[in-house]
Amino acid sequence: MRKIEVIQNILEANESIATQNQCLLDKHKVFAINIMSSPGAGKTSLILQTIAKLKNKLRIAVVEGDVASTLDAERVKNEAVAVVQITTRYMSENCTLIANMISHALQSLPLKDIDLLLIENVGNLICPSEFILGEHKRVVISSLPEGDDKPTKYPMIFADADAVIINKLDLLPYLDFDIPAFRHAAEGLNAKVKFFELSCKTGMGIENWCSWLLNEIKANSQKLI
Amino acid sequence: MRKIEVIQNILEANESIATQNQCLLDKHKVFAINIMSSPGAGKTSLILQTIAKLKNKLRIAVVEGDVASTLDAERVKNEAVAVVQITTRYMSENCTLIANMISHALQSLPLKDIDLLLIENVGNLICPSEFILGEHKRVVISSLPEGDDKPTKYPMIFADADAVIINKLDLLPYLDFDIPAFRHAAEGLNAKVKFFELSCKTGMGIENWCSWLLNEIKANSQKLI
Repeated sequence: MRKIEVIQNILEANESIATQNQCLLDKHKVFAINIMSSPGAGKTSLILQTIAKLKNKLRIAVVEGDVASTLDAERVKNEAVAVVQITTRYMSENCTLIANMISHALQSLPLKDIDLLLIENVGNLICPSEFILGEHKRVVISSLPEGDDKPTKYPMIFADADAVIINKLDLLPYLDFDIPAFRHAAEGLNAKVKFFELSCKTGMGIENWCSWLLNEIKANSQKLI
Repeated sequence: MRKIEVIQNILEANESIATQNQCLLDKHKVFAINIMSSPGAGKTSLILQTIAKLKNKLRIAVVEGDVASTLDAERVKNEAVAVVQITTRYMSENCTLIANMISHALQSLPLKDIDLLLIENVGNLICPSEFILGEHKRVVISSLPEGDDKPTKYPMIFADADAVIINKLDLLPYLDFDIPAFRHAAEGLNAKVKFFELSCKTGMGIENWCSWLLNEIKANSQKLI
């Protein structure tokens, strides 16, 4: 029983820090999204495409969560207003970002100069589902080469997502991926989820995703007034 | 400090159960491999191809580890001598198989009728690196669509692997994946690792992988005499 209690305590503490993070973000009118996926599904590419599309309208900062390396932060650093790298390899929770890591990151970000914070979680479809960070929206990327059975096999992360991005659509001709079956399985877990079918490589579909994001930011800022 | 102690205890207990598992496997001359990868990299497809190629030479059983669903066990059940499904969703360690789960699985497998046990781990490049199961060899599958930077971003799982399988080679014409750079990064972590470049979809390269497996099984059985 001791171990279960410890885990329960971690989750409760995480939730409380996440609430504080969201308070701080709202105070500075920063909208935050938590981007989750398997390794290599396209989190960094989505961030780069989103910045390219929206940088004239929004001041965008990025938190890069990685087990090791700063490869993704290097790719993003010239595009974003600010980038914070979190490397989890030597932390006891190394398989996901947790709210406490974001709390530290927020302290080193110029919050008054940021409208949108894109948080790239560690590549993992399991652990990030248990830890909220203080984000306003949770986004899961599922890429076609991973197969259309992912919602059935990793249900928790899809059940809590606000949006699911189906990425690498440019590879559809070369793969057996049943998009309606995938959407049906994800909707079975989460009737309100929004879907975006796109390719971060070609840019196809990025427009729709960015429109949704702008609407959500607007809706949140109206709620705060 | 309390939490770190608990985690340390879990890892030590896991190692001791893993040693018992390997003892039991060796007693029955069962060779076990632990197959790890991101979600959708091709673990089940590799198992199906391996069984197809080796079923006339070896009696093969499978342990299927999944967060949720029995989809993979359904795909494998008509091909293997025996299949055990482990569903981790409601377990406190739900992000990886651990030695204790394998200990239970071994109790329900007909060990005297098995030569090779293929253990399909949960789709995750992080947590499985910390937990040995009692396997003789550790195999990581990395598929081309995930990108060639995975050894740098998830070093722990590559550092401990005996073999790395580069899967989905059929997609190479449609992707930017630098195979020499990938191999170089993995070798930097692990100079002794064996590489297999293959496609579970077309069957290309499966022969080499199965030859290596047969040699390793033979080498292990000679060690046991």
